[in-house]
Amino acid sequence: MKRFHSLAELAPEATRDLLALAARLERASEPRALAGRQLGLLFLDPSLRTLASMQAAMARLGGTSVVLSPGRGSWPLEHRAGAVMDGAAAEHVREALPVLGGYFDALGIRAFASGADLAADLADADFAAMTALAGVPTINLESALDHPCQALADWKTLDDLGIPTHGKLVLSWASHPKALPLAVPAAVLHMAAARGMEVVVLRPDAYALPEPVLARARTAAARTGGRVTETANRREAMEGAHSLYGKSWSSPLHYGDPETEKENRKRLRDWTIDLDWFDGAAAAARFLHCLPVRRNVEATDAVLDSPRSSVVRQAHNRLWAQMAVLHRLLGGER
Amino acid sequence: MKRFHSLAELAPEATRDLLALAARLERASEPRALAGRQLGLLFLDPSLRTLASMQAAMARLGGTSVVLSPGRGSWPLEHRAGAVMDGAAAEHVREALPVLGGYFDALGIRAFASGADLAADLADADFAAMTALAGVPTINLESALDHPCQALADWKTLDDLGIPTHGKLVLSWASHPKALPLAVPAAVLHMAAARGMEVVVLRPDAYALPEPVLARARTAAARTGGRVTETANRREAMEGAHSLYGKSWSSPLHYGDPETEKENRKRLRDWTIDLDWFDGAAAAARFLHCLPVRRNVEATDAVLDSPRSSVVRQAHNRLWAQMAVLHRLLGGER
Amino acid sequence: MKRFHSLAELAPEATRDLLALAARLERASEPRALAGRQLGLLFLDPSLRTLASMQAAMARLGGTSVVLSPGRGSWPLEHRAGAVMDGAAAEHVREALPVLGGYFDALGIRAFASGADLAADLADADFAAMTALAGVPTINLESALDHPCQALADWKTLDDLGIPTHGKLVLSWASHPKALPLAVPAAVLHMAAARGMEVVVLRPDAYALPEPVLARARTAAARTGGRVTETANRREAMEGAHSLYGKSWSSPLHYGDPETEKENRKRLRDWTIDLDWFDGAAAAARFLHCLPVRRNVEATDAVLDSPRSSVVRQAHNRLWAQMAVLHRLLGGER
Repeated sequence: MKRFHSLAELAPEATRDLLALAARLERASEPRALAGRQLGLLFLDPSLRTLASMQAAMARLGGTSVVLSPGRGSWPLEHRAGAVMDGAAAEHVREALPVLGGYFDALGIRAFASGADLAADLADADFAAMTALAGVPTINLESALDHPCQALADWKTLDDLGIPTHGKLVLSWASHPKALPLAVPAAVLHMAAARGMEVVVLRPDAYALPEPVLARARTAAARTGGRVTETANRREAMEGAHSLYGKSWSSPLHYGDPETEKENRKRLRDWTIDLDWFDGAAAAARFLHCLPVRRNVEATDAVLDSPRSSVVRQAHNRLWAQMAVLHRLLGGER
Repeated sequence: MKRFHSLAELAPEATRDLLALAARLERASEPRALAGRQLGLLFLDPSLRTLASMQAAMARLGGTSVVLSPGRGSWPLEHRAGAVMDGAAAEHVREALPVLGGYFDALGIRAFASGADLAADLADADFAAMTALAGVPTINLESALDHPCQALADWKTLDDLGIPTHGKLVLSWASHPKALPLAVPAAVLHMAAARGMEVVVLRPDAYALPEPVLARARTAAARTGGRVTETANRREAMEGAHSLYGKSWSSPLHYGDPETEKENRKRLRDWTIDLDWFDGAAAAARFLHCLPVRRNVEATDAVLDSPRSSVVRQAHNRLWAQMAVLHRLLGGER
Repeated sequence: MKRFHSLAELAPEATRDLLALAARLERASEPRALAGRQLGLLFLDPSLRTLASMQAAMARLGGTSVVLSPGRGSWPLEHRAGAVMDGAAAEHVREALPVLGGYFDALGIRAFASGADLAADLADADFAAMTALAGVPTINLESALDHPCQALADWKTLDDLGIPTHGKLVLSWASHPKALPLAVPAAVLHMAAARGMEVVVLRPDAYALPEPVLARARTAAARTGGRVTETANRREAMEGAHSLYGKSWSSPLHYGDPETEKENRKRLRDWTIDLDWFDGAAAAARFLHCLPVRRNVEATDAVLDSPRSSVVRQAHNRLWAQMAVLHRLLGGER
């Protein structure tokens, strides 16, 4: 494996290999597998799970990692080609990335969507530009349009929970005070389709996912016998569901327009996921979320504290999933 | 040892064991004792000594550590049960703590007092709630009411300096521009009483320590032949003292009322500890402070630069004391 | 080697030894050379290269490092002797440095110039005061007047590129929105003179370097057959040059006067280094810069993206140069 940018660019057997390796590493440690290997972690945006679990993953495999945070201890970065840099940004990614590539064996990069230019975010333009400059294997720690570490951990979680490969997963929009990126819904939608599931995107009409996001998932579903549909009808969506994945995201219709988003959201306060959402679901249906979750806004305490909730297990699987990725990127090839 | 939250919950022999181990580790390194062990360090508040010495301690024992700082690179955390999270906090401790517990073999947590609700702070409510969620051994890196790493290092320092077990320690309030937490005075008072010392709390009347803090120390003193008293009379307090421990703290009478605190403090500018405070003390009496210390406000340059000052030695003992704690929490039990 | 503060205080054979060791470490790793050694890194100012490469360097030699950032997670530091600390700074360097010296085998310190008091900055007063307090070997990670890690890496880069020992290096002032420190120009000027080069400082008249900076370089040049001159004439400076080192710095005439600096700079917008600057230079002349560089302000995209640019190679050499320094400071002497 030369890079880990998206599950969508991995062959099915490569994903299966990572899942098997993650399960093996959970059972049996390999504390010297990456001895002497160095990972650089470039965080342009905040993180708890990714920040903690990537460092823990490297350490558990005997390697080391270094965190860099532009704007918080390191220089603020410019991304635009041709920019006249007389503003706040002291350094351009055209220098920063090749420089860091010389210090580390691989680089993880977290760079959220701009939230302003939907076409650029759908093309994952900033992330693509940065990784092209690095000169070493790169790992997507959440870009504008993808979050493959999350998706791989979620796939493992669905397996761990015994949720059927062709089971039904509802990916539901949820209330949130802010307009959030499309990375997690896009990654989870593709993952569930690639796993062969019947995926229903449950969302208010203004929050229909962009066509390229749906198309990518449909392509995966076509290969696996999965299915991808959208609806605003909660009862219909949840009928017989094996899992409900809650997540908020920006309206593609009002992308980069926070005022309209705010107005929209005032009318959508009933999109706080509660226990009664599971009324028509399978008896053992699970609640999933990538975290962080805003309690009593995205989902109620009742849901998060119920036996249905598997959100902590998802987060724990980040560790094993990422250890598998690091092992394949950096292991045994010196 | 399953956790390290307070010297007050350790059996006397457990404290003696830690002190003996700290002394041994200072003399003879054990660079592989914690090989393959991972420590998560959750800093909700600033730190120099704790931040540096915990990482150095893990590294000297062959383990690794990862620092997480909510609000500075990681998501700001919500603590309140039942909160509707539509404000600044993106994540609740109910998720954050169990998640981190899955990544690390132990967690250290630093979470200062609210400074607003005395009863909650005296109950150490936030810290107790967080540690209950972690699922792995936890270490108190300073909570609302305790700072056992400091207390253990101070106990070792008193031993190192040859200050008699039943000697006299004056814990004195000192000037400071801010209303500071009760954690260090409470921890030091208990530590000195548990060591068997005659402890005198020297403070202006408005700064008498809360009854639960005094009661905990008196209970310890009753077991060891120590004694705990309070006074506002400096000459009487310092008479024959073997050590003067300077520290500022909030007035329990005006807790959460910074305006009254500010007015009070204008009248207390003579509470800057100077060399003449030692006039009636033992010839070899030492000055102690947990650091950071505000020079020429809490204590003069003359005190801090005199041979009486042992503040740097206290800070150095943090390293050995914490190595002992980590060794007992994480060592030899895989 | 007991400290690494400036190339100017190293014997010529010590510098040659570091360069040879850096080249050897680039070819052949020594992954256990500093096993069990701990480095503390005190960053009072932002950094990308130094922050990343010092940690990577320690890790590649088998040691560990810990980063401390006063004001960003650690207490803001006071430097002034005799200060009454009732302001923002919670801790004095008189405590912080000896404390950290007890936790680590060596300390790296980054503390930029005040930018206000030229005499104090030329004396490197804050850095000297801090290192005198540490009690362990100290490394200059950029002080008010020096940046020896950069200078050593640049020397190696000039060697790597085959630029003649007695070749011509032009150190040119460049446009920049801010008044920057003198550390890099002072260190590079000395380095090139100590390498035996003909160094021409090309700058507007108001940006002539201070006499002590020039004198130090001339002393080095006198030993090596190098030469140090200054000019404002670009064509004359660049005639036959083997390398052009771009860097902005503050005007010594208007030090600590940002308004006058701002006005000056409006008239100096043609000091953006472009490809035509190389018109009279040697055919293979190289562009150098310590980074971060402000594209299209200090130098154009055309220069930075041309084959002349060696700025990334310079940055990569930071790693090997610093590994050599750490090896000599901490290796094989336990």
